[in-house]
Amino acid sequence: MSKIPLILLCNDDGIYAPGLSALAEEVSELGEMVVVAPISERSAVGHGITLTRPLRVTPVHRSGRLFGYGVSGTPADCIKMALKSLLDRVPDLVISGINPGPNAGINVIYSGTVSAAVEAAIMGVPSLAVSLDAFTEPDFAPAARIASLVAARILRDGLPEGILLNLNVPALPLSRIRGFKVTRQGTAGYREVIERRVDPRGREYYWLGGELQFSRESPGSDSVALEEGYCSLTPLRFDLTDEEGLNLLRSWGIERDFPLC
Amino acid sequence: MSKIPLILLCNDDGIYAPGLSALAEEVSELGEMVVVAPISERSAVGHGITLTRPLRVTPVHRSGRLFGYGVSGTPADCIKMALKSLLDRVPDLVISGINPGPNAGINVIYSGTVSAAVEAAIMGVPSLAVSLDAFTEPDFAPAARIASLVAARILRDGLPEGILLNLNVPALPLSRIRGFKVTRQGTAGYREVIERRVDPRGREYYWLGGELQFSRESPGSDSVALEEGYCSLTPLRFDLTDEEGLNLLRSWGIERDFPLC
Repeated sequence: MSKIPLILLCNDDGIYAPGLSALAEEVSELGEMVVVAPISERSAVGHGITLTRPLRVTPVHRSGRLFGYGVSGTPADCIKMALKSLLDRVPDLVISGINPGPNAGINVIYSGTVSAAVEAAIMGVPSLAVSLDAFTEPDFAPAARIASLVAARILRDGLPEGILLNLNVPALPLSRIRGFKVTRQGTAGYREVIERRVDPRGREYYWLGGELQFSRESPGSDSVALEEGYCSLTPLRFDLTDEEGLNLLRSWGIERDFPLC
Repeated sequence: MSKIPLILLCNDDGIYAPGLSALAEEVSELGEMVVVAPISERSAVGHGITLTRPLRVTPVHRSGRLFGYGVSGTPADCIKMALKSLLDRVPDLVISGINPGPNAGINVIYSGTVSAAVEAAIMGVPSLAVSLDAFTEPDFAPAARIASLVAARILRDGLPEGILLNLNVPALPLSRIRGFKVTRQGTAGYREVIERRVDPRGREYYWLGGELQFSRESPGSDSVALEEGYCSLTPLRFDLTDEEGLNLLRSWGIERDFPLC
């Protein structure tokens, strides 16, 4: 008899976010489920952790039962808190999401949703980040269903150490989603526009804005798959070493004869 | 006649940090220099950006002259603000640092210092992150000198698109540093210990702590080079795609026959 798998859920939109609820509903069928997520929205925090302030933990109930724990920190903080303090046993899988809005291309770097999955992978737990390609009036149900399928596969086959999966689901009904594409992280990003404004007291301030752009996008990327109606599934790593860069730097000869003084 | 290069400096310890001052002193010899850095310490923020709050910019003077601009945001915010709003022309090089404490191994992922260089690379500007392997009573002068040498090389030869350099310097006098090693990002990390405490009002709180560990470290890594008295120079990228993972996922057959409903 195999033991019931433990699945930890997290996100960056906060423990009360509808994307997390939709995910929890589907995933509860796969095993025992526990939620440790930021108590409030922490989008675009990247892989930040909280060292200079204490963290508070708030039990959150739903329908009279414990739903999970809200942490006053970042998604990465939540994973550390869960694995090092709140949970009795190591989870078999961490799922982060469902994020409203894609985490594809360059945006992967800024994503709190992805960072929770990265933190899990660093700590040796298989993980999956899930995002839906819709900002307004998102229907999370299809993405939750698909995330559950991928989760079941990871629970069955595992993932190699150092790899996490990043799933993006198009904003379509299940019947119109064309399937999966195994993709690369693309180069889509936001074209930043920084607005300069004046506050009511006459002092200048700035605000980061921008719109998604798909310039220079190549075939095989996450964004292209989404645009074509496929779910993109991208294997990510947290070893940032650039292999070609190693050869380039060696060709500089700095290991031999770079002057030090 | 070649034009004078423009060099943008940033860090995560704030515009008043001594590591930045030491860097500025050396780098000012290489060209025109401008500083855009957080107005206060923003360590371990990872690649966070500020979307939900306005940003303030404060000119900071030193010895009666403009030293740079302090921004009420993260290191990545600073680079965006500099390139999209504050500077008249695109810099030829971004240098982030000098961080007191190494940014090697897993810690690269959490580093605000590295994230400023990553942001520059995303925006197409060659960049270098610089850290000193000393937390207490750091002498930044040797690291500043070595950073300046690497910077001069980048200014002369450039860097391929999508690559940034991560330099770690041992806490030794120049005469005792053994040279450079071209390294990989290793696996050194912090062994997290989360302390549970009780506040003066009787309520629980938690605090992230931990100590650096070098378990499972492999030859050729940044941490090993530092321990042996070498400067580590690691080429990093922001494309997190795991190449072997692509083959693994394709072998799952999910592009062919993964059930959607």
